[in-house]
Amino acid sequence: MRTAAAVIAAFLLAGAPPPPHWRPVPVAGVAEPSDTIKKAPAAAWRDVAPDNLLVIELGEGGRIVIELAPDFAPVHVANVRAFARGGWWNGSSVYRVQDNYVAQWGNNEAKTPFPSAVVAKPPPEYSRRLGGLTIRPLGYPDSYAPRAGHTNGWPIGYDRKTGKAWLTHCYGYVGVGRDLAPDTGSGGELYAVIGQAPRHLDLNIALIGRVIEGMPLLSARPRGTGPLGFYEDPKQAVPIARARLASDMPAAERPHYQAMRTDSASFAAYVKGRANRGGTFFNRPAGGVDLCNAPVPVRKAP
Amino acid sequence: MRTAAAVIAAFLLAGAPPPPHWRPVPVAGVAEPSDTIKKAPAAAWRDVAPDNLLVIELGEGGRIVIELAPDFAPVHVANVRAFARGGWWNGSSVYRVQDNYVAQWGNNEAKTPFPSAVVAKPPPEYSRRLGGLTIRPLGYPDSYAPRAGHTNGWPIGYDRKTGKAWLTHCYGYVGVGRDLAPDTGSGGELYAVIGQAPRHLDLNIALIGRVIEGMPLLSARPRGTGPLGFYEDPKQAVPIARARLASDMPAAERPHYQAMRTDSASFAAYVKGRANRGGTFFNRPAGGVDLCNAPVPVRKAP
Repeated sequence: MRTAAAVIAAFLLAGAPPPPHWRPVPVAGVAEPSDTIKKAPAAAWRDVAPDNLLVIELGEGGRIVIELAPDFAPVHVANVRAFARGGWWNGSSVYRVQDNYVAQWGNNEAKTPFPSAVVAKPPPEYSRRLGGLTIRPLGYPDSYAPRAGHTNGWPIGYDRKTGKAWLTHCYGYVGVGRDLAPDTGSGGELYAVIGQAPRHLDLNIALIGRVIEGMPLLSARPRGTGPLGFYEDPKQAVPIARARLASDMPAAERPHYQAMRTDSASFAAYVKGRANRGGTFFNRPAGGVDLCNAPVPVRKAP
Repeated sequence: MRTAAAVIAAFLLAGAPPPPHWRPVPVAGVAEPSDTIKKAPAAAWRDVAPDNLLVIELGEGGRIVIELAPDFAPVHVANVRAFARGGWWNGSSVYRVQDNYVAQWGNNEAKTPFPSAVVAKPPPEYSRRLGGLTIRPLGYPDSYAPRAGHTNGWPIGYDRKTGKAWLTHCYGYVGVGRDLAPDTGSGGELYAVIGQAPRHLDLNIALIGRVIEGMPLLSARPRGTGPLGFYEDPKQAVPIARARLASDMPAAERPHYQAMRTDSASFAAYVKGRANRGGTFFNRPAGGVDLCNAPVPVRKAP
């Protein structure tokens, strides 16, 4: 039988699942996460491909850039690309902002014809096969999933018993609006999380990516006063001028982004730093961190 | 030796700490949390005393109401009352809004004399004695504290080994702005959480309560473009007309609030419902919930 200290040591060394009777183990003197990001070598970053970047321009100016996650919801992401290429969002709006929950945009799917390439009834892409993914366990308990961690620059919950992995509803993550179950939505109406992570939506909705630029254009909007935060006055709706894939933009106009590789030593140091904030401000490092409170670093490509 | 099933059964029955190798146990057919709140009997609610209500009126109209938590930070809460009675916030402003983090308000403590009743250097009220509290364990793992739960209508982390309990940085919770450690702040500059719970601030800052009315007046503000979300243009600062305790307002003007008793059967049903969302929308109940995603219900007194 191993001692408690040995269990904790093994846990810290391996980034393994938390041991029974988990206790935070605060670590002093850990590097500040912002410093770790600054010092991360080029090899610690992966490029975001131009057809994984959805660029939404608002009528009032400003843009929202979303990184798509085709490895998790391939049919929905293909739909999002088809909606963009078909000009479907051009002239639509942000029509719902619910405090501490989501901002939502698009057209009314029942009233606006889909571009022909859109799959009208996609499969329920709420999780994917765990096999084949390189996973970095978070190393701290999760309130929703048996295990939490990261793969290829994305936060996930996963379950070795069912062999499933799934994206998680963290701040800024983008999901597919839908009607009542078992409808999955097509991808023409999307929402982004603007408050405490509504992780109860995990495994119930297809997530297609995350906002990596322009979050305040969604999060700082007046909240809708109708049920669920819908704008009651149509004048409050925020016009969307157009939405394009970066791959369909002139090369000189394309944004270029990189996400930190979650299999890098830099990311391990970053998570350790998020779990053990120090410096001159903190009296006591936490010794733990929530999956959604260690957001994967994303930067403009240098 | 108990079987795994017996361990899980004991856990579910007792609301006890999660067993080793915790797995979510989704429960179907659980009552909707909103229905549980509607049906909760009068005995499931406790009144909020008028001197535990801080009412902040903005110059542009609208008010923010904060429930104070004297059982957790008595000296800081006494200071907040003294600042209010001394008129200290009247004419001050909301001067910082950082996306996915906090909105902050008050006067510059270095430049504005304190009312005489304020204790200039309060003790570090970052936790309190666990003894004497009636605790309802959350029953699900926490990423920051050995145990999470509720006491007297407040969410807490706690640790039976150290004998400490502390309020947690959930959405809408209000903390005392301070300089670098070991400064504790006086309570004259306050902030509210407007994004993913920054639980790494737990045990590092004095929390004095929570916003129970008017959150969008803080969360829907334009984000500051200066470092840490400070407004660079003083014109962006949002004037505060005045801040008073409800107990100092004419009786006819006072707001009256109630918080759900966290030792009630209604609250147990509510948490179970938050952990197992069902109805016609959800395909799969989560079987778990984060402490900050089961906010204690608060209502206007009927």
